[in-house]
Amino acid sequence: MTNGNTLLDALTQALGADAILHSEADMAGYTEDWRGRYKGPALCVALPGNTQQVSEVVRLCHAHGAPVLPQGGNTSLCGGAVPAAGGRPPVIVNLARMRRVRRVDAANNSMEVEAGCVLATVQEAAAAQGRLYPISLGAEGSCQIGGTIATNAGGTGVLRYGNTRDNILGLEVVLPDGSIWDGLTALRKNNTGYDLKHLFIGAEGTMGIVTAAVLKLHPLPSAHAVAWLAPDSPQAALDILGLFQRACGSRLSAFEMIDSNQLDVVMAHVPGRKNPLPGAHPWHVLVELSDTGDDAGLQELLQQILEQAASQGLLHDAVLAANGAQRAALWEVRHSVSEGNKKAGVGLTTDTAVPVSAVPRFIDEATRAVRELAPGLPVLIVAHLGDGNVHFIPFFTFDAWNALPDRDAMAAAIRRAVNDVAAALGGTFSAEHGVGRSSLAEMAHYKSPVELAMMRAVKQAFDPAQLFNPGRLLP
Amino acid sequence: MTNGNTLLDALTQALGADAILHSEADMAGYTEDWRGRYKGPALCVALPGNTQQVSEVVRLCHAHGAPVLPQGGNTSLCGGAVPAAGGRPPVIVNLARMRRVRRVDAANNSMEVEAGCVLATVQEAAAAQGRLYPISLGAEGSCQIGGTIATNAGGTGVLRYGNTRDNILGLEVVLPDGSIWDGLTALRKNNTGYDLKHLFIGAEGTMGIVTAAVLKLHPLPSAHAVAWLAPDSPQAALDILGLFQRACGSRLSAFEMIDSNQLDVVMAHVPGRKNPLPGAHPWHVLVELSDTGDDAGLQELLQQILEQAASQGLLHDAVLAANGAQRAALWEVRHSVSEGNKKAGVGLTTDTAVPVSAVPRFIDEATRAVRELAPGLPVLIVAHLGDGNVHFIPFFTFDAWNALPDRDAMAAAIRRAVNDVAAALGGTFSAEHGVGRSSLAEMAHYKSPVELAMMRAVKQAFDPAQLFNPGRLLP
Repeated sequence: MTNGNTLLDALTQALGADAILHSEADMAGYTEDWRGRYKGPALCVALPGNTQQVSEVVRLCHAHGAPVLPQGGNTSLCGGAVPAAGGRPPVIVNLARMRRVRRVDAANNSMEVEAGCVLATVQEAAAAQGRLYPISLGAEGSCQIGGTIATNAGGTGVLRYGNTRDNILGLEVVLPDGSIWDGLTALRKNNTGYDLKHLFIGAEGTMGIVTAAVLKLHPLPSAHAVAWLAPDSPQAALDILGLFQRACGSRLSAFEMIDSNQLDVVMAHVPGRKNPLPGAHPWHVLVELSDTGDDAGLQELLQQILEQAASQGLLHDAVLAANGAQRAALWEVRHSVSEGNKKAGVGLTTDTAVPVSAVPRFIDEATRAVRELAPGLPVLIVAHLGDGNVHFIPFFTFDAWNALPDRDAMAAAIRRAVNDVAAALGGTFSAEHGVGRSSLAEMAHYKSPVELAMMRAVKQAFDPAQLFNPGRLLP
Repeated sequence: MTNGNTLLDALTQALGADAILHSEADMAGYTEDWRGRYKGPALCVALPGNTQQVSEVVRLCHAHGAPVLPQGGNTSLCGGAVPAAGGRPPVIVNLARMRRVRRVDAANNSMEVEAGCVLATVQEAAAAQGRLYPISLGAEGSCQIGGTIATNAGGTGVLRYGNTRDNILGLEVVLPDGSIWDGLTALRKNNTGYDLKHLFIGAEGTMGIVTAAVLKLHPLPSAHAVAWLAPDSPQAALDILGLFQRACGSRLSAFEMIDSNQLDVVMAHVPGRKNPLPGAHPWHVLVELSDTGDDAGLQELLQQILEQAASQGLLHDAVLAANGAQRAALWEVRHSVSEGNKKAGVGLTTDTAVPVSAVPRFIDEATRAVRELAPGLPVLIVAHLGDGNVHFIPFFTFDAWNALPDRDAMAAAIRRAVNDVAAALGGTFSAEHGVGRSSLAEMAHYKSPVELAMMRAVKQAFDPAQLFNPGRLLP
């Protein structure tokens, strides 16, 4: 181990002064997360321009025993991509300069991209060839594809297309010792030994730096149909989901549920949003079908299923979007949830998933558990119901929050109570956001000793010096 | 390390005498593969009845330093599931007695099964609930689900539903030290640390014993449409594939290509098979669409695409199956390939995959490479074209084969030449069959030192004593 200045000099020598940021001012956008909740010092920010340079940076860090923090678009919700406050300041390796779309192979339904490509750029490059890269999420205008891989990003397309993991064919990774693994295969089938790419997907930068990837593409849907429904209950929503799956198969591309509390918050706090249905209903579902072909057939299919659901008494009311503008308006209500909640108060957002069949019971039991800790506290519910992923949000007005004697203790008690209910139903405390720094305590609490030991064995095998993104993911 | 008898006594004590086979006669079906190509001695065959017993067997083997060979239905094509001829005889752990379907959760589209369940049983249990478990392959009547997981089995449903890997939600595994990992989650989203299940899928029993799994189910298609086409060339077949993907999206469930040599062998050697099209054509494709809804709409869609293909000059001729019996007859031609080839001569079957876009070039170049080694030798081609998976089969009559001065050398030279062409196109030497014993030399030859080192590090982390399925997968 040597001191920081020697390493800084060596990095500057290797990459050039322009590619190494080390003043406090230059590093500001890299050392703090976008919500301002996590911040920590770094030795410097390295901006390599190609895989070879990433390898050189990592080799130098390895030789100097310096921690390495891989960073993409820095859009993490759990503090996974900025330095910890304590410990030796890491070298942040930000991939922003590696943003080439290397190749789109339309006939193979694949594309090879560098890790620094912004997700929206990747989507556009695919669409230009009549293909879909199906990962879609709020941060897509700024998150990098490498970050979505490191966190196995989810989003709104998971029901039909799976998570990021399901859309990766191959990876190029710089390993913790600086060696380069060229796993950039574009194959659909390849049974030649352990499938190493899955070790890095969702590993949150603790196993190496993803520098490039081969992504799986899909036919670009040409037809869409969207409806807003008011089911009688979460169980009725599930029954309707079953009708859709039977009748539409993989045409079903979104099945999102919110409760009336959540809809009320959006209506009250986000200007311009229109309540999709007249009257008050306890539960709301946005359903989307997409397909090849044209809209008309899909609209008709959607209409038929809604009639079926109504005839079974599952539905209070429903409205179908008649055109693209109406579809967008319905989605806008769904997408206004975060903005509404931020304005309305303090939500203790959880990122739970349970088996789809257990969602109604989870909502019931978690609500009861929270009410025991905070009688009368409203809960907002936003669920990717088709995936069993429920953002269950006990919600305080600003006044109620500020009046709490111990806010941290209340937040921790509520989170634990909700996660306990999920765990008892075979669920998880982090469906799509990852672990980062914010869920380390949950990892220690909910994971079995056997599973934690397995994870530590994997980490030890690849990063014995424990230099990569220390203090994240593994408690 | 102790001698075999002590271990045998301990195993008998733990599981009961009925569950431990050790006479040569009793072990015969376990120590040799079904084609009679690989055979080796075993200390005994253990038949545990539950996960706890598997754990006890493994703990005892671990304590005695005895190799462990996990075994399912023993249907491997590459010698992966029977003992090696040399080395210390292993304890074969066969899961046949663990064959409970523990639970079908239709609303979650999942089912939990024990590893010894036969694949066909799993398919039936899913279908009874209106769901599809989409892995389908020739050995489905005898292979065990645990074996399909250990080998990441492919088959005919991969184009639409992916490989086995893509249809596993959770696993239960007995690790090499005997500890039990309960990873039996039924979640669609779970970002809490490394995704450990992928370490065991496709690991060919070298990392532990899969004892149970949660499988992903799909809506059971109710509509089918099948056609047999005669495209002009492999490139024309690819162009037609593109038309189908654009127009049908995920309704496309099979796109299988064979060449005229292969069709001729089936017609000449398998009684009762009917040539689907009049006249002679160089290339043949079987295409299947499946969907919810009824057959009529799907037939019409298929008809439309064929007309489009014909109008673009891609197609010599085509026939649509009018009903279920005709569909079955077309599939029967495709499924008679192995039987025909076995009767007709000696095929040096390869299991290549290349990017889908590279298939025409692969066929051209591999044919040229083989002809240089064996002028005039016919090649049979059977391809899962939609997956880029080509079984490229240089084919000898029995007389020609027997006349060769050095058969092993010829076989090795031809395989290497074909695999070299695949490798140069970014392809693989084993798309779906795995490595087992038969492809160890290819692993050593084609995998990079970095990748082999990564695989060895993973193996070392979980099985430091190198007891699990030694001499398989890793050279």
